Amino acid sequence: MTFPLPENVPTPALVVDIDVLDRNVRRAAATADEKGYALRPHAKTHKTRELAARQIGAGATGLTVATVGEAEVFATAGVDDLFIAYPVWADAAKGDRLRRLADRVRLTVGVDSAAGARRLARAVGGAGVSVLVEVDSGHHRTGVAPRDAGTVAGAAVEAGLAVTGVFTFPGHGYAPGAPEAAARDEERALAEAADGIRAVGLAVSVVSGGSTPTVAAWRPGVVTELRPGVYVFNDAQQLVLGSCGPGDIALVAAATVVSVPERDRMVLDAGSKVLGADRLKWMPGFGFLTALPDATVLSLSEHHAVVRLPDGTGPPGPGAVVGIVPNHVCTAVNLADELLVTRAGEVIDRWPVAARGANF
Amino acid sequence: MTFPLPENVPTPALVVDIDVLDRNVRRAAATADEKGYALRPHAKTHKTRELAARQIGAGATGLTVATVGEAEVFATAGVDDLFIAYPVWADAAKGDRLRRLADRVRLTVGVDSAAGARRLARAVGGAGVSVLVEVDSGHHRTGVAPRDAGTVAGAAVEAGLAVTGVFTFPGHGYAPGAPEAAARDEERALAEAADGIRAVGLAVSVVSGGSTPTVAAWRPGVVTELRPGVYVFNDAQQLVLGSCGPGDIALVAAATVVSVPERDRMVLDAGSKVLGADRLKWMPGFGFLTALPDATVLSLSEHHAVVRLPDGTGPPGPGAVVGIVPNHVCTAVNLADELLVTRAGEVIDRWPVAARGANF
Repeated sequence: MTFPLPENVPTPALVVDIDVLDRNVRRAAATADEKGYALRPHAKTHKTRELAARQIGAGATGLTVATVGEAEVFATAGVDDLFIAYPVWADAAKGDRLRRLADRVRLTVGVDSAAGARRLARAVGGAGVSVLVEVDSGHHRTGVAPRDAGTVAGAAVEAGLAVTGVFTFPGHGYAPGAPEAAARDEERALAEAADGIRAVGLAVSVVSGGSTPTVAAWRPGVVTELRPGVYVFNDAQQLVLGSCGPGDIALVAAATVVSVPERDRMVLDAGSKVLGADRLKWMPGFGFLTALPDATVLSLSEHHAVVRLPDGTGPPGPGAVVGIVPNHVCTAVNLADELLVTRAGEVIDRWPVAARGANF
Repeated sequence: MTFPLPENVPTPALVVDIDVLDRNVRRAAATADEKGYALRPHAKTHKTRELAARQIGAGATGLTVATVGEAEVFATAGVDDLFIAYPVWADAAKGDRLRRLADRVRLTVGVDSAAGARRLARAVGGAGVSVLVEVDSGHHRTGVAPRDAGTVAGAAVEAGLAVTGVFTFPGHGYAPGAPEAAARDEERALAEAADGIRAVGLAVSVVSGGSTPTVAAWRPGVVTELRPGVYVFNDAQQLVLGSCGPGDIALVAAATVVSVPERDRMVLDAGSKVLGADRLKWMPGFGFLTALPDATVLSLSEHHAVVRLPDGTGPPGPGAVVGIVPNHVCTAVNLADELLVTRAGEVIDRWPVAARGANF
């Protein structure tokens, strides 16, 4: 995998290849347009105003966010249609913030229980907040069973909220070979939930699914909107899942070889405080090295990546700068204050991670 | 485990119990004083000026940090003796920063190769930077073999640096039952390395070991200084290792129950972007719940903790606020902008995580 790194960059740093990034953004938008679903990218991946503007400019119908804090950042950045894809428990402070947001943007919030819907309605008062009912399509995280969606929707309407549809996150598609089946689960669960909502006399205009690994398995019929996030940068998990190729990686951590204790082991200055400690059990290590695809990132400490080199590879000398593709780009970006934006190995811009830490 | 949480705190948030914290700080200082080793706490755990001041006030000889950036933050905060326990590869920019630091504080930097030492010497010029040679005592991360310490020390002196001793991190003590043996490995490795340095005609004034799990196994004779970090807050890993008890936990993440999809499963609003995704293979989950010690934090998404409740436990209602002890407190703190400081469940202060993200 080639990923040109700028010279004299202080490491560790997150480096974006803007040409790859722009291609990823345009391709996802073109595919959505061609196939006929709405694209509402999840902005928790990038947390940057510049990328939000690119996604909206390419035709996204709005953005997805995970928290009230992220919604505030992107509303201030001028995005006027935001979906908080989370069953927000609206205490008084979050209720005030949601009300203020609803004055500025078209705001949709997730609910997955009658109690949560009543709480949200009380907290936002008469503000124009729409809700989507979250359904569990097999990931077994949040979300009601599809058969219970009508009950939750009815409770939300009774409490004074406008229900516009259903959503799910098919997170069980995050395993090799699993995306296609997860997309079918998603479709089935959303269809049953939408029918249940219609059965209590409500219209369903949004049927929203998600996730970079399952997007390619979308079929016409049920799902009207998709919410992938990672596709803008891609990462080591997506490479293993096959949802991107090596040429689609738009972000790496630049790291310096600080120590070569043995011929088959070297240590880099990017650890879990830069890459994130995410490692799903099917991942072979804690990231991939762009220039040494057969090397294994054996372990991360906070400021060390310990790399096992394949037999016969002479280790790069100490001081060499290498690129690491993080396992999970969303957590890596959330650890950084800024992204170094490059074209052909030259730094052309720096984007602040504006919503870094906006996790409540 | 009881940990009083403040009411009406926006979640997720990191909450510190200042009385437990102060007891942890004082006890570590008193033990060091009584037993006769120098305490140089690792500030990467807390990254806060207020805690640095408490540690120095309690008698710490200085602080340990992991990066040049952390050293800059604590130098500005008035700490005048800093050890960067890392084999910094000193490019031109880091060389300039180290020189400026050495003008302001007593600065020591780690080296683990002759090449690294020569590079450091060239980058800092004639600035008064001392070095400690890093030795691998069994963790197999950075550090030279103990028998090679003399060679590295000789190269450092030849390059113009002042060598004051040796250090190691016995990270292989992070496993149940392992701390005692790791402390003995540490002692042996440091003794051999110190002898090697003396054999090339140099004095050894600092023999520095580390880590919260191995501190209690310190014996007089070889090791003159210890660098524990986590002990100020403690965390779920330390509970499993037995290096602290439930009453010594000084930091939890306050999280709200946002969803109770089944009687034995609930979902909290603190995920990997708050707790960190760290999970060593001997940890039973991704953290402990203070009020429900038999519950298991099965999985983390970025904004969700999925908790399995033991049979017969009625789940807390949605909206309940619970405390989670993070697996690894250092990564959790690095994700937060501030710590809520409490006494008996009342917020009495907010400490900025001043060195958050200071990872280069």
